[in-house]
Amino acid sequence: RPSSPASFRPVTVAMGQSQSYWASIDAKIEDHLKKSIPIRPPLEVFEPMQYLTLAAPRTAASALCVAACELVGGHRDDALAAASAVHLMHAAAFAHEHLPLTDRARPKPVVHHQYSPNIELLTGDGILPFGLELLVKSVDPARYNSDRVLRVIVEITRAVGSQGTVDGQYREFLCTQSNGDELCDAGWVEYTCEKKEGGLHACGAACGAILGGGNEEEIERLRKYGLYVGTIQGMLHGVGRNKEGMKEAADKLRALALKELDIFSSRKTEPIASLVQATLVNA
Amino acid sequence: RPSSPASFRPVTVAMGQSQSYWASIDAKIEDHLKKSIPIRPPLEVFEPMQYLTLAAPRTAASALCVAACELVGGHRDDALAAASAVHLMHAAAFAHEHLPLTDRARPKPVVHHQYSPNIELLTGDGILPFGLELLVKSVDPARYNSDRVLRVIVEITRAVGSQGTVDGQYREFLCTQSNGDELCDAGWVEYTCEKKEGGLHACGAACGAILGGGNEEEIERLRKYGLYVGTIQGMLHGVGRNKEGMKEAADKLRALALKELDIFSSRKTEPIASLVQATLVNA
Repeated sequence: RPSSPASFRPVTVAMGQSQSYWASIDAKIEDHLKKSIPIRPPLEVFEPMQYLTLAAPRTAASALCVAACELVGGHRDDALAAASAVHLMHAAAFAHEHLPLTDRARPKPVVHHQYSPNIELLTGDGILPFGLELLVKSVDPARYNSDRVLRVIVEITRAVGSQGTVDGQYREFLCTQSNGDELCDAGWVEYTCEKKEGGLHACGAACGAILGGGNEEEIERLRKYGLYVGTIQGMLHGVGRNKEGMKEAADKLRALALKELDIFSSRKTEPIASLVQATLVNA
Repeated sequence: RPSSPASFRPVTVAMGQSQSYWASIDAKIEDHLKKSIPIRPPLEVFEPMQYLTLAAPRTAASALCVAACELVGGHRDDALAAASAVHLMHAAAFAHEHLPLTDRARPKPVVHHQYSPNIELLTGDGILPFGLELLVKSVDPARYNSDRVLRVIVEITRAVGSQGTVDGQYREFLCTQSNGDELCDAGWVEYTCEKKEGGLHACGAACGAILGGGNEEEIERLRKYGLYVGTIQGMLHGVGRNKEGMKEAADKLRALALKELDIFSSRKTEPIASLVQATLVNA
């Protein structure tokens, strides 16, 4: 059995007291994922599925889903299935992004490949619907949450689909295959980060707010907060990491992000606000 | 603009009067798909998406979804979104199945590649969640069908996931990469066809029965009918097509399939029963 990956390598939030807040959420999501994908026969299906799920670098988008749910008054457990689904979508996209396709002249930074390309392709194709199945199974007739779950499914399918993550991956692909830099200017960086990390974080935050019973304004405010946080994440740690001017652009987005939280009491927003600080501190 | 594929090449059902029945359903599904994926900016997203959706060989699983809905008393339109989602899942799997991955020593039978491998990979990743989004958007509060749609989402995510289509694709991959034939015996053929075409047809039929308001027995009977029809399809036209003994095995499954329909009045089952006949006639 392949050694299980350094499990779930959380982005450490070097922000003291908030650090334990995010760490506790990460631990709960990881536990929920491991329980949802137990290693059982057929091993050639579930071993790669658990491995590729936990091997994908953690995305704060799933923890943000839980934090947003709590911020609007929901219970942490109400958002666990959605937070796990967000991570599963991210893991499927990550696995496919590093596939050795014949037309990828310049491969992405090398990642460790535990399985053959065909297994990684097929497992990614299996993880995506599984994430949505997990979500639907979280419907609880006693809590009349089916309409909220349906709304979350649309949020997720849109965020990861052709106008979300897939569009961001395509833009990134175009730049890695182009020789000149004129294609990959600052505008391209922000657009790509918005589509990739930005969209996933926006989706996570919005889903948490929906499941926590937030009103429409709270849902949209948290969506925008997530969009800014994720875009900053991409600019500083993703495709923009070696580009000039990213820190300054990120600072502007940080201010916009914090502004979105101003309808909530500052005492309650402290944990969630720490995410945008941490994303900058870790730059 | 690439020439649009011979649109939606339906499997002709050479069974006289039933032929027009299936043709009318196919036309309605194709129309629904074209309307759901209009060619609009960004063209580099929607052109391949529509092309790969219509270029995939038609699967009777989607028409079966509509037919099952009608058989249990539902209206054809109640099943269109689910039938389209079933076809979209099939199209995404078909696109990924023919990707030129580096570990596919013996490529599958050559299909025409209108787009680069990366576009086919990403578009497949976009089609799958889009199919589920289409389904969720078919929820109509006035018709209180959200619970039925949620149930159909689980049916579809299971049918196309790691224990459904993906497992069938993996088995098929193992055989194409193995030299000896001992791996690809009759038992392997039936298992693979059950997981691939069988599972999708079973899913289509069950979803149609659910959306049409069928009772649990009707849903399970139609599920089994679909499983047999799809398995026969795979044995005669899919991985089993050049294998010995398939016709005989298919005949046995045909009898089992027709038996599943015995709880319905024979007059009403004539159209749906013609599918299993046609699948054999076209062998």
